[in-house]
Amino acid sequence: MEISKEQLSLVNERIAQLLRADSFYGHRLRQRGVDGVASAEDFRRLPFSEKKDLRDAYPLGLMSVPEEKIVRIHSSSGTTGKPVIIPYTAKDVEDWAIQFARCYEMAGVTRRDRVQITPGYGLWTAGIGFQAGCERLGAMAVPMGPGNTEKQLQMMMDMESTVLCATSSYALLLAEAIEARGIKDRIHLRKGVIGSERWSEKMRRSIEEKLGIEAYDIYGLTEIYGPGIGISCDAHDGIHYWDDYIYLEIIDPQTGENLPDGEWGEIVITTLRKEGAPLIRFRTHDLSRILPGDCPCGSRFPRIDTIQGRTDDMVKIKGVNLFPSQIEEILRTFPEVSSEYQIHISHLEGKDTMRLYVETNGSVDFLDLAKRIAERVKSRIGFTPLVKVVEIGVLPRSEKKTKRVIDTRYQ
Amino acid sequence: MEISKEQLSLVNERIAQLLRADSFYGHRLRQRGVDGVASAEDFRRLPFSEKKDLRDAYPLGLMSVPEEKIVRIHSSSGTTGKPVIIPYTAKDVEDWAIQFARCYEMAGVTRRDRVQITPGYGLWTAGIGFQAGCERLGAMAVPMGPGNTEKQLQMMMDMESTVLCATSSYALLLAEAIEARGIKDRIHLRKGVIGSERWSEKMRRSIEEKLGIEAYDIYGLTEIYGPGIGISCDAHDGIHYWDDYIYLEIIDPQTGENLPDGEWGEIVITTLRKEGAPLIRFRTHDLSRILPGDCPCGSRFPRIDTIQGRTDDMVKIKGVNLFPSQIEEILRTFPEVSSEYQIHISHLEGKDTMRLYVETNGSVDFLDLAKRIAERVKSRIGFTPLVKVVEIGVLPRSEKKTKRVIDTRYQ
Ligand SMILES: [Zn+2]
Ligand SMILES: [Zn+2]
Repeated sequence: MEISKEQLSLVNERIAQLLRADSFYGHRLRQRGVDGVASAEDFRRLPFSEKKDLRDAYPLGLMSVPEEKIVRIHSSSGTTGKPVIIPYTAKDVEDWAIQFARCYEMAGVTRRDRVQITPGYGLWTAGIGFQAGCERLGAMAVPMGPGNTEKQLQMMMDMESTVLCATSSYALLLAEAIEARGIKDRIHLRKGVIGSERWSEKMRRSIEEKLGIEAYDIYGLTEIYGPGIGISCDAHDGIHYWDDYIYLEIIDPQTGENLPDGEWGEIVITTLRKEGAPLIRFRTHDLSRILPGDCPCGSRFPRIDTIQGRTDDMVKIKGVNLFPSQIEEILRTFPEVSSEYQIHISHLEGKDTMRLYVETNGSVDFLDLAKRIAERVKSRIGFTPLVKVVEIGVLPRSEKKTKRVIDTRYQ
Repeated sequence: MEISKEQLSLVNERIAQLLRADSFYGHRLRQRGVDGVASAEDFRRLPFSEKKDLRDAYPLGLMSVPEEKIVRIHSSSGTTGKPVIIPYTAKDVEDWAIQFARCYEMAGVTRRDRVQITPGYGLWTAGIGFQAGCERLGAMAVPMGPGNTEKQLQMMMDMESTVLCATSSYALLLAEAIEARGIKDRIHLRKGVIGSERWSEKMRRSIEEKLGIEAYDIYGLTEIYGPGIGISCDAHDGIHYWDDYIYLEIIDPQTGENLPDGEWGEIVITTLRKEGAPLIRFRTHDLSRILPGDCPCGSRFPRIDTIQGRTDDMVKIKGVNLFPSQIEEILRTFPEVSSEYQIHISHLEGKDTMRLYVETNGSVDFLDLAKRIAERVKSRIGFTPLVKVVEIGVLPRSEKKTKRVIDTRYQ
């Protein structure tokens, strides 16, 4: 999606601000001799930034205003190495709440709703973002924070909460707890604002059914406000994002080239109004695409598709970008295969080859099944894999995250 | 302290509001036929309210505005039985932040400070109150939440935090951890805003020395905004409270009579501006007294003394209200006695008698020590106890809260 004149003008405001600052971006822009962007081509020449750059700026190298203007920091969890620290001005805090209130509105939440907030507070951006947006909208925040399922259920019943804010896994846990206790008729939930994790359609439907809610997919990153920069609408076909606060590009993660609308690639975000720590062309490593065309909901805000995973999972084969979740989605349409699979990519006689291993319970024709899967991959993704069907239990299982792609081309 | 005309007028606003509401106080006022207060005598005829009344109103019986105006609830922890739920309007949330910002200002915190916030978030009123006040003042909030001492120390060093917000026990734990690791020269703290628990002068001094800070004592209750309705000043002689937001009385906890300024008794609070859940003459069961006279700091806000415990600990003997912390303070001035003691109160031959058991290490004259303690109690509290000095180790120890007062008069 081409950058608009208004967006360019906001980017120029940010560049002017950054050039005055003794910060990571200030140094980088001065070093590159950037003093503004007059056109979309200029913009595309701006350097990307990476999570590593932000981490190297620890603790306060991203701060781009005088410290007196900073009222808060947030931070990514940083299980390994240094966390990223993002400073916020009072206006950043307010802008985030405005965007989050829009998310609730998009999900049909009103001032009469009671919003049970289960994500965590503190350095993490989740809880306080959900709460500030709710309070700005004027709905009633029931600020629970994470864990303590018994207390969550008690408050959900006693307060007659109508909206649940949670990660998809915690929403599912609560849904299953409600089912197990047989208390669904004492639950008044009608909406779910669910975020921070990739979740499948199947999981969404399960959460919706068990809780009796309509679930909305909220998007965001600690580095860019936090959750609340976009959300799905009643059409449930992609995520609207607030293009008056962020400019969003889709790039080829290998070449860095901008991709046309409709093509899958990596989300890159430039913040248009952030003061405390503006980001220029930040590579999120999240995989999505711009959805072309208007949304049936009537919203003028553009849409990206549901996040399909991380670029680290992505491989390029025969010139086509492929990521495991695409294969997963296809395999899910075959009830006769298990949820285990493996992708082997090799380079033989000058050609990339993909072998796809899947498991079946043995009561089907292996060759026929392999042929049908190969055809569906070809029609959906654009090339034909070699499909190998094996007996159930043959593929390796792992307690940890299973390795799905084995790429031996560059070894 | 007599209620002022401005305060009376705000009480009348609250009564008018409550009479329109289908809430606990609305019912009670209508039942009593109260339609306003024209004088201090009228005000003193208003019924008290108790924590039990608030608990009986669970879940939303305190809500005194239409629900659309409520943006948040908070709740007391409620380890036993039902918690108290306090609804807040947007104005209540703002008023709380205004009061909390005043607390930081009273403690000398400025926009250049970095404020590490360790109390918890969620239903509990602590964390988010500390954060909102800090952000309103314009200082930088480092919102940690509770626990994870290693991470707290890391952030304290890396962020060069200058202000610590904590309970007294967690402040002491952090102070001891810093001492044990020998990292005091990497700590930049200069102020502590410490609250939510009774703490002794000795503990305060220990925290101040080990952390190299000046510590301020912040006061508040979940039922009345949360922490932030008062704080000690640089004079460290009592707690200033914001009499434009609350009217504070001291009563005799047994008779309910108002006590003159300077006399110890129970704090009773009426909220003057709270919309979501105004409280009328709420009995806090906290023990303090109004400090007469002007504070050397020059603040016009009135003062209460440091909280001395709970009314449940208080006994009336020979017409004088006595609480164990008064005895503790006196015993602390005798270095030769241990920290263990017991108070026995009995009624013999028509008279109340108090026996005070204390321990010593045995190298002093027992009779002389007993005499000196008895004299000091007489001069500080107003009557002479029978003091019994025993060998160290004779008094019972308990893992749990030690029973200090054994009152056999009404058995
Ligand atoms: Zn839409
Ligand atoms: Zn003072």
